[in-house]
Amino acid sequence: MKNDPKLHDATHSIENKVIANNATQNIYDDQSFFDGYRTLPRSVEGLAAAGEWESLRAMLAAVEGRSVVDLGCGYGWFCRWAAEAGASQVLGLDVSEKMLQQATADTDDATIMYRRSDLETLELPTGKFDLVYSSLTFHYLHNLPSVLRTVERALVPGGIVAFSVEHPIFTAPSSAGFVRNGDGHWSWPVDQYLVEGPRTTNWFVDGVVKQHRTIGTYVTLLLQAGLVLAHLDEWGPTDEQIEQHPNWAIERERPPFLLMVGRKPG
Amino acid sequence: MKNDPKLHDATHSIENKVIANNATQNIYDDQSFFDGYRTLPRSVEGLAAAGEWESLRAMLAAVEGRSVVDLGCGYGWFCRWAAEAGASQVLGLDVSEKMLQQATADTDDATIMYRRSDLETLELPTGKFDLVYSSLTFHYLHNLPSVLRTVERALVPGGIVAFSVEHPIFTAPSSAGFVRNGDGHWSWPVDQYLVEGPRTTNWFVDGVVKQHRTIGTYVTLLLQAGLVLAHLDEWGPTDEQIEQHPNWAIERERPPFLLMVGRKPG
Repeated sequence: MKNDPKLHDATHSIENKVIANNATQNIYDDQSFFDGYRTLPRSVEGLAAAGEWESLRAMLAAVEGRSVVDLGCGYGWFCRWAAEAGASQVLGLDVSEKMLQQATADTDDATIMYRRSDLETLELPTGKFDLVYSSLTFHYLHNLPSVLRTVERALVPGGIVAFSVEHPIFTAPSSAGFVRNGDGHWSWPVDQYLVEGPRTTNWFVDGVVKQHRTIGTYVTLLLQAGLVLAHLDEWGPTDEQIEQHPNWAIERERPPFLLMVGRKPG
Repeated sequence: MKNDPKLHDATHSIENKVIANNATQNIYDDQSFFDGYRTLPRSVEGLAAAGEWESLRAMLAAVEGRSVVDLGCGYGWFCRWAAEAGASQVLGLDVSEKMLQQATADTDDATIMYRRSDLETLELPTGKFDLVYSSLTFHYLHNLPSVLRTVERALVPGGIVAFSVEHPIFTAPSSAGFVRNGDGHWSWPVDQYLVEGPRTTNWFVDGVVKQHRTIGTYVTLLLQAGLVLAHLDEWGPTDEQIEQHPNWAIERERPPFLLMVGRKPG
């Protein structure tokens, strides 16, 4: 039984499915998924409708005059925000042609360039970016260790990578969802938290595969890539947000998102 | 219903009890608690019986010739290990007179000095220690932010603080314990993860108060104290450990301990 949290609703139904190591998933080009995803508040209204955006934004250094890349740019909301905030150039990468078509149609800014890219085999120029940004994308990637090494090389000294993922408490369970106790209290049963690997979920379409990793692994991968941890936030709604969206209150029972920032030394 | 994990068994029963900010808890000097705690495998057999010890030890730099302090030294198992590993001096601090009496009785090594200390108001000499160690103690402390600032000042440049705490997933719930689904699968219901503060648990005696903090808060307090995050591990048993202790397998459903290492720059 679920309480329809709306903020980020997903139902997991694990099948312990083993996917080929190098298979790239492109669910956003699935018409049914695309049609469902486009109805989300964050798809319609952009960053302002993403509860975690203000927290993530507060972790970014000023982007004015900076070179920015967005890994998994989707509709381009962040790219347009960065350009409006004065970024000198913004590159948006995504594997989905449909998302990039929409992003291009919605963008009228020569500072921004979109390019189709399979992030599983990400290539970026060396020492080029002040900010690598990625929103709710890394949990789809199998090859995150090599992606983070590529990111580290692509950053200028002192540059940062800022990203959000679904929180490991959110991705871990074999059957994810809130359950209600006899006294009406909601809880989120966690199992196989320390069993990392694919979780197959049904979200708009069946068989969406996400990679469950612990917070420890996200941190370790960042450090092993040569980055310094600058921020780690297990995001939940503020009092003010709950006042505006009472049905977000349940997200305090377990965090929906993990936000992290790594900095390249120098 | 619980599966008696043995590794680290505690039953939480929250009463949303507000304790005075500066009250120092000294449950280890409660005779009933002391009598119960002394029966734990880690009390009888020391570090070898603590499942997480090998992982924590692997995060330490060599202690040979180093100056070490143990915050919450208990029976002194770690102090004796450090002295045997060649530490130049070892200071063991604990609030419990009973624990310190036992530690002193079990120790015959002039390298080691025990001292009674209320960690809530910890004072340490400046720039003195290469290693500050603390095992399963910080989750009792209300004043952890100031303790970590004191730790940072007490470290030499390049020195580290290595500590374990009960994992936030373990401490969060209003009613902590494994529950069994209809299909016989165990899970750990999480609620109020993002609601930090005291949790009152019954562990050997009623009313043991622990401070629930998120991983994000532990990391942020470390960084705010001026330390660099060097390791973060959400500990669970290895395959080998599960072979030796089959009833530890359930700990993979949710991590019992969080291990962290911070380094003073320089």
